[in-house]
Amino acid sequence: MATFIEPKILKGFRDFLPAGEIARRGLVERMEACFRSFGFVPIDTPALEYAEILLGKGGGETEKQIYRFKDNGNRDVALRFDLTVPFARFVAEHRGELSLPFKRYHIAKVWRGENTQRGRYREFTQCDFDIVGSDSPAADFEILLMMKQTFQSLGIGNITIRINHRGIFNRFLERLGLRDRSADILRTVDKLGKIGRDETLRLLSESAGNAAQTILGYIETAGTFEEILRSITEASGGESPESRRIARIRRFMDDTGIADSFVLDPSITRGLDYYTGVVYETFLNDLPDIGSVCSGGRYDNLTGLYAKESLGGVGSSVGLDRLIAALEALGKGETASSYSKIAVACVKEEDGGLYQTLAGRLRTAGIPCEAFLEEAKLAKQCVLAEKKGAQWLIIPGARPLTDPLALRNLKKRENQEGLSLDDIIQILRA
Amino acid sequence: MATFIEPKILKGFRDFLPAGEIARRGLVERMEACFRSFGFVPIDTPALEYAEILLGKGGGETEKQIYRFKDNGNRDVALRFDLTVPFARFVAEHRGELSLPFKRYHIAKVWRGENTQRGRYREFTQCDFDIVGSDSPAADFEILLMMKQTFQSLGIGNITIRINHRGIFNRFLERLGLRDRSADILRTVDKLGKIGRDETLRLLSESAGNAAQTILGYIETAGTFEEILRSITEASGGESPESRRIARIRRFMDDTGIADSFVLDPSITRGLDYYTGVVYETFLNDLPDIGSVCSGGRYDNLTGLYAKESLGGVGSSVGLDRLIAALEALGKGETASSYSKIAVACVKEEDGGLYQTLAGRLRTAGIPCEAFLEEAKLAKQCVLAEKKGAQWLIIPGARPLTDPLALRNLKKRENQEGLSLDDIIQILRA
Repeated sequence: MATFIEPKILKGFRDFLPAGEIARRGLVERMEACFRSFGFVPIDTPALEYAEILLGKGGGETEKQIYRFKDNGNRDVALRFDLTVPFARFVAEHRGELSLPFKRYHIAKVWRGENTQRGRYREFTQCDFDIVGSDSPAADFEILLMMKQTFQSLGIGNITIRINHRGIFNRFLERLGLRDRSADILRTVDKLGKIGRDETLRLLSESAGNAAQTILGYIETAGTFEEILRSITEASGGESPESRRIARIRRFMDDTGIADSFVLDPSITRGLDYYTGVVYETFLNDLPDIGSVCSGGRYDNLTGLYAKESLGGVGSSVGLDRLIAALEALGKGETASSYSKIAVACVKEEDGGLYQTLAGRLRTAGIPCEAFLEEAKLAKQCVLAEKKGAQWLIIPGARPLTDPLALRNLKKRENQEGLSLDDIIQILRA
Repeated sequence: MATFIEPKILKGFRDFLPAGEIARRGLVERMEACFRSFGFVPIDTPALEYAEILLGKGGGETEKQIYRFKDNGNRDVALRFDLTVPFARFVAEHRGELSLPFKRYHIAKVWRGENTQRGRYREFTQCDFDIVGSDSPAADFEILLMMKQTFQSLGIGNITIRINHRGIFNRFLERLGLRDRSADILRTVDKLGKIGRDETLRLLSESAGNAAQTILGYIETAGTFEEILRSITEASGGESPESRRIARIRRFMDDTGIADSFVLDPSITRGLDYYTGVVYETFLNDLPDIGSVCSGGRYDNLTGLYAKESLGGVGSSVGLDRLIAALEALGKGETASSYSKIAVACVKEEDGGLYQTLAGRLRTAGIPCEAFLEEAKLAKQCVLAEKKGAQWLIIPGARPLTDPLALRNLKKRENQEGLSLDDIIQILRA
């Protein structure tokens, strides 16, 4: 007796069935169209790299989560766990071939052996876009504008992007004599939304002592964009290049008419150490609880690990899985299970070539069309067509290319008889 | 002093710079558009699977080439080395969720630790398309038709698809009393093109003894499609379901007007053991020496390793790297280094928001447009625009949204002055 291998996949990994994959592709394609319209270009890097390259001087959490092994040539290799580190290596390696500022996007899978109990996946897709080699506030702003446009093009333009500047915060900490605790404090502040006010205050007291309440007051500064900017500028010792940068970005927002989507939020710091300037997170106004769907910021040393020349930039990353969950929750998810809305029935199997010719004319007219391959009762073919996500079924005559055609509306369960292919094209375009 | 990690990638792996990645995406997008027009749907599977799943009962070459390791949970895992095995596992696992015949495509990366000296890559992209769950010759034909259409849509429709039927060959071997040597003989015959006539004869003598010359005669049968079909039908003992299938497929070719692109070639067998029916390879008539750019065939037991129900199908695979090499050799490669052909110059950095508004109007009109971010001499901005692959540069006035615009043709080094944005849109669309 034959024994079978149980068909199963690894925990934290996923198959994508057609409906799910069509939804993902649809999202990615719309995002890409937006990136491309801004002149951003795609790149790709290997899934597998030298572990040394990916881990850098790092360690800690990353080291524990990374898929790392010896390959057949005994090289110490690992699967990429994000797109930022490979991008840094890429820019250092190809510096001479890139024109700065370099605007690139990269949509690809990454792998982390995370704890799946928290609903995390071990294989997931990241969508990163960055401008490297420009220190201008216009670069910060372009990333923000592209975020706004991207969500607009996905049909979820009702967003709030909360921005802040780490540099202003650091000037504020400097005045409190806490500059050396900055990393700790920024990480604590970043958790405010998750752990709440009291716990934040408790943690702040640990790193900032008596100043904890002052810091909490700072990050909770309320008011309009301008009021908050004025208030934190004051708290950080008056005007500075950083506060002027925020004011400049604000002007850009006004000039493009998108200021309504932005809030200056002194509590946004991003946990990651490599951000040095503007930072931001994006929330869906109709679904704020899902958390940030697109975050990023400015860093001033992307390539430092791999090259002497220090290159700064600004970028953002969309979490595709969270975005899809959000769209589903909002009832805006793509639900098609096929790209083809019409099929040609198979009345007589030997006429298959003629059915393909019919279908081919629709395809040439820009209408995807599946040809059914096997003879079966029409009722059965209608059921199959519906299962496959089609709305129409063409029923050819005995001489498929010359006899009039019948068109079945699968939802209404009605036939229209005596049609030409042109009639059908008209009906489908209507 | 800081020490740097040398930015390098693993041998056999590749970075894709924008121009290369744009060319790859362009190809993939055109292929996908063709697949979708036939009603094929995309799926995706994990890059990493249980090694047991991927290796099956296998071993041999695959076992040596596969990237296999123990993950952090001590599971025996491996990177997929093709898309066929994961597809078999996928179909077995999701059988209840799929409507048969199931027409899917899958374009994704696979990994093999191959010898890179032969110019092979260790990470490469496969494009597979299959119809599972139909035994009809109409399914065989649809794959062939879609291959023809795909190459047509890539601008290289001048192809020859060489097809054959393994079953007819096996009937022929049966008559020679060599049915049990079939696998060996098919593998030898598959090498004819590579190793030449004499070496083929020598190898055939080893497995087939005196019959070697007869076999060589069979695989070298010449004539028209019909003549060859008649001749091999005779040599295999007369009409059979297999010869009737080829005749039926031939009729489909005639009925769709694509018969000219097909040759019946008894020497095509495909090396792989799992093919059981029709097999085929695709050659570019303008570049035959590059070898087959798209091959495949019918298999009658895709899922046997993972499920009791045996499901057959037919499919094909495009080698993306070979295809790109071919297009380049034919001077038909995509060479754009950007999607955007026009940029807005930055005359005064603080007007960045207004430049984005200008650029945004072009984007809305369907014209990708990059906005330059930093003030620089116009001559320098022209050079940058050209480097980035743009053909036009918009030079805004002091009041960017109301003053007339200048448009620089970067190739001709000419300015047109006094234009409105609508004028520019007209010029770009012309």
